[in-house]
Amino acid sequence: MKKQLHVITNGKQTGDEITRIARDIHTYITALHIREKTKTAKELTQLLEQLKRNGVPMSKIIINDRVDVAVCWQTKGVQLAYHSLDAALVRAAFPDMMIGCSVHSLEEAQNAEQKGADFLLYGHVFWTESKREQDPRGIEPLHHIVEQTSVPVIAIGGIKAENVCEVLHTGAAGIAVMSGILEAESPLEAAKNYKRELEVWNELNV
Amino acid sequence: MKKQLHVITNGKQTGDEITRIARDIHTYITALHIREKTKTAKELTQLLEQLKRNGVPMSKIIINDRVDVAVCWQTKGVQLAYHSLDAALVRAAFPDMMIGCSVHSLEEAQNAEQKGADFLLYGHVFWTESKREQDPRGIEPLHHIVEQTSVPVIAIGGIKAENVCEVLHTGAAGIAVMSGILEAESPLEAAKNYKRELEVWNELNV
Repeated sequence: MKKQLHVITNGKQTGDEITRIARDIHTYITALHIREKTKTAKELTQLLEQLKRNGVPMSKIIINDRVDVAVCWQTKGVQLAYHSLDAALVRAAFPDMMIGCSVHSLEEAQNAEQKGADFLLYGHVFWTESKREQDPRGIEPLHHIVEQTSVPVIAIGGIKAENVCEVLHTGAAGIAVMSGILEAESPLEAAKNYKRELEVWNELNV
Repeated sequence: MKKQLHVITNGKQTGDEITRIARDIHTYITALHIREKTKTAKELTQLLEQLKRNGVPMSKIIINDRVDVAVCWQTKGVQLAYHSLDAALVRAAFPDMMIGCSVHSLEEAQNAEQKGADFLLYGHVFWTESKREQDPRGIEPLHHIVEQTSVPVIAIGGIKAENVCEVLHTGAAGIAVMSGILEAESPLEAAKNYKRELEVWNELNV
């Protein structure tokens, strides 16, 4: 399976900025996670309308936390975090929903898998500015989680183009990037760089 | 149709307090709206679990804003406010969901009805501590909205047992109460008082 590239918004950019970047990069990425914790459902709706108007397909959008917004907008899926609805409840009520779960340990990963998660987001793997107070978890536990679960694991946290290969060697299904793309001088060039690394890996490992 | 008594939480009470009150009053009321804007989906889940454990039926619960929580918990319905998902989107995605819409003018009321709202919550009718900065809208516009729409209109805002009758004379389908019950010395006695007023009205107007 082709390695995935997820991009996750950081709650710091305006709707216009997110839209401009999304319009440029969406063909190079697997999914854009709308992770805007302070936005109301109405504000998320306005952002999704704007993305749609600018040609960003909903099939590339994953909504953080709000399953109802994901359903109403028929997005690719929903990403559940610690503060979200329980994955098992969501799976039972929305059998066709693609559910991602954010996990930080093997126990959480196995729990999420058991509850019906379609993929896991695990991190943070490397040191990152957005989690500067916490030590990174490193490559080893990522590898362990990949081995001990059977759903795709997407790695997140401080991943740069130059260590994509190291991450994928763990068996991770892909990577997720926040500032590495959204705060790059050229988000488009940054997305292309990551994408290129994933493609090189794909070609070497068919 | 019997006049309705809705009770709406105010975001100021703990889960234990809400549960204790709900356990006491649920047989006297039509619905308890969980309107806890700062609670995450996980925290709402914990509250709903606690309510359920204490014998409060989900068929008496209306969830503010979070349609996904309402679906997962099979509550009576959802209440949409200004910052919520658009009622038309929710109606299309969840055809069987009971949808209440909070409205503040005839225009908003007609708009909500057109979008598929099952009932409207209109206010605030009388002066109330929780909206102390705003003038109350009064009985006249309530009467006007009841006449110009064909969905049940529940009146809210500063309604006391002694003016229930005046409110119902507008044709309103019922009343909604926050502090009048939740912050009463005895929420149970307060709920019974309101309920009695509604029943007197029902008996005089069969």
